[in-house]
Amino acid sequence: MARVSQAHLDARRRQILDGAAVCFARNGFHATSMQDVLKEVDLSAGAVYRYFSSKEELIGAIVGEVLGQVHEGFEEAAHSSPPPPPDLLVASVLSRVLATKESLTVDGRPAFPRLVVQVWTETLRNDELAALLREGYGAVRETWTRIVGAYQEAGIMRRDVPPEDVARTMMAAAMGFLAQQALFGPTPAEALGDGLRALMSMRDHSLVNVPETGSN
Amino acid sequence: MARVSQAHLDARRRQILDGAAVCFARNGFHATSMQDVLKEVDLSAGAVYRYFSSKEELIGAIVGEVLGQVHEGFEEAAHSSPPPPPDLLVASVLSRVLATKESLTVDGRPAFPRLVVQVWTETLRNDELAALLREGYGAVRETWTRIVGAYQEAGIMRRDVPPEDVARTMMAAAMGFLAQQALFGPTPAEALGDGLRALMSMRDHSLVNVPETGSN
Repeated sequence: MARVSQAHLDARRRQILDGAAVCFARNGFHATSMQDVLKEVDLSAGAVYRYFSSKEELIGAIVGEVLGQVHEGFEEAAHSSPPPPPDLLVASVLSRVLATKESLTVDGRPAFPRLVVQVWTETLRNDELAALLREGYGAVRETWTRIVGAYQEAGIMRRDVPPEDVARTMMAAAMGFLAQQALFGPTPAEALGDGLRALMSMRDHSLVNVPETGSN
Repeated sequence: MARVSQAHLDARRRQILDGAAVCFARNGFHATSMQDVLKEVDLSAGAVYRYFSSKEELIGAIVGEVLGQVHEGFEEAAHSSPPPPPDLLVASVLSRVLATKESLTVDGRPAFPRLVVQVWTETLRNDELAALLREGYGAVRETWTRIVGAYQEAGIMRRDVPPEDVARTMMAAAMGFLAQQALFGPTPAEALGDGLRALMSMRDHSLVNVPETGSN
């Protein structure tokens, strides 16, 4: 039997994950069979099953990889002091993740936002996927909460709001932005950064009325 | 034939729409049959078909109603000068919509956020629903764009960001917040308001570096 390099194994694994991601984005997890994936990647069952034994394993690997990328992006930011402002941070992590999936398309449009919405729906009836998503989301939220704490420590954000609420809100903005891409077509991530920046420029009415807030 | 009051007809219509919403939230549009809806509302086919002739009509009525409520909430705000700040506005419209659907549950949890995610997925493969959603979303974005313009006119938001980007961002935050509810369980809408308020309190780094921006 010929020896196979690690690079070849990695490339093959990538090819299968990408093909499965396109299938799931196109028709959803439920309506996609392993046969559909084999057809999409143009490989034999033997070649694919060597890497992944089921659809569940495939979706788990795809979701885990994306959540890992997102987490890593914010984790990196959490180590600067103070961390980059939210408008730049959200837009840069989102652009980076979108860029890694750029080559994957469904009907000529980016597959990734569509995949995200399909995964959410599948999560509603798949406990294993729900647990995976909950764990990955929890890790990202924990990192975001630390970033928000650093903004507050540095005196650049009011201190009377629970950091976790801010973390939820930042993640909500990115999630909703992805849903918009899936539903209404692509918009550059900079639009989201711009929107957050405009919000950051607002005079905070409640600071005027509530002088006892902890913010600078 | 007995005469039937308008109030009775309205109540019956409401009952059918709510039952269908719960079915769609539970299993998605595709996996729900008219039989499932009849069973859920405990009415005969004749009684239901008198109001709605198909699943498509049901989902269209449900989506149209929700988008109408959201649009109305923001349209009202657009008429104040200046409009309420985004943190209060988003949280109040979201709470109001969630409150109207409060009685609808799936497995003891609010059905509405789940319904929203199911509708998004169905939109990916249903052109008619996609057109309806695009139109309703467009109307809300148009209203939000006017609200943002009013913030900018009033000098309480920087003027160098396209109002449409801010509108997209506000809507993204609300959409992502709903997705979080569906995936991870309920959180009061105030958490989103708090998060936006904290963001509004940030010192805007780029205003320091870019003195030529239009925002005061």
